[in-house]
Amino acid sequence: MAKELTSRSENYSQWYNDLVIKADLAENSAVRGCMVIKPYGYAIWEKMQAELDRMFKETGHVNAYFPLFIPKSYLSREADHVEGFAKECAVVTHYRLKNSPDGKGVIVDPEARLEEELIVRPTSETIIWSTYKNWIQSYRDLPILCNQWANVVRWEMRTRLFLRTAEFLWQEGHTAHATETEAIEESRRMLDVYADFAENFMAVPVVKGVKSASERFAGALETFCIEALMQDGKALQAGTSHFLGQNFAKAFDVRFATKEGKEDFVWATSWGVSTRLMGALIMTHSDDNGLVLPPNLAPYQVVIVPIYKGDEQLAQISEKARELMARLKALGISVKYDDNDTKKPGWKFAEYELKGVPVRLAIGARDLENGTVEIARRDTLAKETVSIDGVENYIKKLLEDIQTTIYQKAADYRASVTRNIDSYDEFKVEIEKGGFLLCHWDGTPETEEKIKEETKATIRCIPFDGDHTPGLCMVTGRPSAQRVVFARAY
Amino acid sequence: MAKELTSRSENYSQWYNDLVIKADLAENSAVRGCMVIKPYGYAIWEKMQAELDRMFKETGHVNAYFPLFIPKSYLSREADHVEGFAKECAVVTHYRLKNSPDGKGVIVDPEARLEEELIVRPTSETIIWSTYKNWIQSYRDLPILCNQWANVVRWEMRTRLFLRTAEFLWQEGHTAHATETEAIEESRRMLDVYADFAENFMAVPVVKGVKSASERFAGALETFCIEALMQDGKALQAGTSHFLGQNFAKAFDVRFATKEGKEDFVWATSWGVSTRLMGALIMTHSDDNGLVLPPNLAPYQVVIVPIYKGDEQLAQISEKARELMARLKALGISVKYDDNDTKKPGWKFAEYELKGVPVRLAIGARDLENGTVEIARRDTLAKETVSIDGVENYIKKLLEDIQTTIYQKAADYRASVTRNIDSYDEFKVEIEKGGFLLCHWDGTPETEEKIKEETKATIRCIPFDGDHTPGLCMVTGRPSAQRVVFARAY
Repeated sequence: MAKELTSRSENYSQWYNDLVIKADLAENSAVRGCMVIKPYGYAIWEKMQAELDRMFKETGHVNAYFPLFIPKSYLSREADHVEGFAKECAVVTHYRLKNSPDGKGVIVDPEARLEEELIVRPTSETIIWSTYKNWIQSYRDLPILCNQWANVVRWEMRTRLFLRTAEFLWQEGHTAHATETEAIEESRRMLDVYADFAENFMAVPVVKGVKSASERFAGALETFCIEALMQDGKALQAGTSHFLGQNFAKAFDVRFATKEGKEDFVWATSWGVSTRLMGALIMTHSDDNGLVLPPNLAPYQVVIVPIYKGDEQLAQISEKARELMARLKALGISVKYDDNDTKKPGWKFAEYELKGVPVRLAIGARDLENGTVEIARRDTLAKETVSIDGVENYIKKLLEDIQTTIYQKAADYRASVTRNIDSYDEFKVEIEKGGFLLCHWDGTPETEEKIKEETKATIRCIPFDGDHTPGLCMVTGRPSAQRVVFARAY
Repeated sequence: MAKELTSRSENYSQWYNDLVIKADLAENSAVRGCMVIKPYGYAIWEKMQAELDRMFKETGHVNAYFPLFIPKSYLSREADHVEGFAKECAVVTHYRLKNSPDGKGVIVDPEARLEEELIVRPTSETIIWSTYKNWIQSYRDLPILCNQWANVVRWEMRTRLFLRTAEFLWQEGHTAHATETEAIEESRRMLDVYADFAENFMAVPVVKGVKSASERFAGALETFCIEALMQDGKALQAGTSHFLGQNFAKAFDVRFATKEGKEDFVWATSWGVSTRLMGALIMTHSDDNGLVLPPNLAPYQVVIVPIYKGDEQLAQISEKARELMARLKALGISVKYDDNDTKKPGWKFAEYELKGVPVRLAIGARDLENGTVEIARRDTLAKETVSIDGVENYIKKLLEDIQTTIYQKAADYRASVTRNIDSYDEFKVEIEKGGFLLCHWDGTPETEEKIKEETKATIRCIPFDGDHTPGLCMVTGRPSAQRVVFARAY
């Protein structure tokens, strides 16, 4: 077939790039680091958005929209934040172009210089907290539970489609609370929402935990995260939720009158997931034939391909196919019928495998005679021929089975490459094989930095679940409260 | 009440600003010309988006996402386009900040200057057609029917919330076709979608027509539009759909192999509506008490306010209210129950009037005894007390009636201020009174410009429907094919 992919074993990185391009998910644009999300890729993102948006609303959040631009001085208001975000960002300095004096094209009008430069938002804490200042006077105005769906820009030097792009799409929740406890609860609640989404919709098992101090979001007191493991043994941070304390309230002077008649700074959280999730989805399940999509996020869950000779046979098969489509749709199953006459069935089979459609049905002349249909499931590539009567219920169960099976497969893989390591020498050998290494660490940034420099491994998180037995740091031998998760990461 | 609005008769413009702020729809941000869309305003925009998105998909379109940034040189590729769009826009010149040498804040790093400046998209024809070049080789790749939901920036000097802001949210459809006929049909189809949406969801009557040459979109061969009329007699362009001919295909060299084995440039359309629609919605229906929302776009269609003394009475009323809510929701009616104890019923009544909730229900102690509920409709402010048994069906009809009534009210108003004018002297007097003036015009840009300069009136459109009798231009006496619509406009 024309669209063959590099195999994972040959070159995992090239396999990923090939897949993103050939499955029509995204491509690079003329603007360095900015991607075009193609319709098929965007349709998956829309499914993700819809589920997440529903989950946010069910937990009491509302959507709003804040400006794309942030005055340069705002970034400096919170000391840690500016260190983390003021570096690589797109800076708007002028607001007008004019015709070039040489008559060729346009130039920036030097007279249209902004008094203060504007930054294209890399994240919106600063512009939002400058706004919240006007919304909050008293405890009665709290909590504020806002989310926004938006584009953000971080001028990354090395970009990869979905995983790291200069512009990306995301949602960012920004909440304001009267108490520390409530804010911490909120940030933990949203981490649970992310984990629920990752596991039950993306079918991606994740480890929930807290970041070490050096991996924290710039301006946060705690960063909670979900960490996934890709098929090449590298970790991918799939979502973060930050407890921001009163840092942004202090930076923007957001105070409120408490119930007790005193005055206090407001407590904050922020949390976000982005189009990076597309990368996690692709790399967790897909194989050398292409994408494997979880039925819960597939733009269409079933595709029907007719196998026919001549218009008359096609008409008969199409009638059967349309009846079946109606029955599938009645069960809430999304389905596409591909009777495009310019492509052969073999081409279509390869194409829908490449695009990860969970279930493919084929109906041919013999099926018409026998009252059957051929079912192929994308995850295992297994085929079987079954009676077309009542097949819709079978397919409904099959989709549920695929959703569970691919989750379990990913969980089994993760389990197979997660191990306790107690010696740093062993660690250096094992890290080359990939996977999650659970190790004791003395809790210091120095040891963390040494490990990172020497092995390129980072602490993905201090996990909430699992073994909490104390031990001794594998590097320094000093006491460690519990094992933490090390891995090389995207 | 604290949130009183300026009346329309006193100062229409101030009334609008008051309403947008006090109904919690939007507010100005710290960034000049950029607004914050507040949760209640955004909830209305989300309802608009959901309906439009459904309509786009039902007409065969898919969503995609293209970069925020456009290389400066792209804007100059299409000669008319650059004249229209390259003037007032946000220009990114640098990609990095650094700590200020004086230790105070951050400065733009002069070494991080972009080789070619990037423009924050004012509209996306150029970046999209540079992408389509790679997607289109043959007629088999056509049509491409893409839409994107995005933010755009036009550096307007005078801004007003929703009506004209530097950054706004919109959707932009960009389609590619093999034939001129098909592209024209597409642009007309999408105009019909917009008109359908405006009339049946926003309850805003619109005139469909084509723009005069001087009002065309920069780069289009024809611009079709829907024009609405606000309560102050000024017109508001509510949506445009452009037939772009082969202009952008030529600018970006997008050719395809035709069915006949020849080569041709691709035909294009683009079409968009924006958060400006929020302005049209507000100004068409609202009154001196606040917003009036069409039930089809209201974030919640019904609010229930309990009127009680003491916790016991509240508990009894709440039980009734919850039963009623369940019955309303079963009919697909969205409803909010406001049992907030810190606000009095009178305050709540005023608040929900201000926020335009179509139907307000009040349940008090006497209603409990009598098995009744008080119903107030927002559009007419009429109240009545009816039996609570089966009231959900009554409310369903009432919501339909409100939708129709506010549409009819707007249509009647428009009819009352739409008139034929045949003399330019009379025109100068009549234009001061506002409304649509239907006049003969000789078809020249010179006459159009003269009228605009002398009266501030513009040709809103050459309407498709209505009187197509030829006549003589009111200014020059030269022949005119049909009357066109003049008005002062937002």
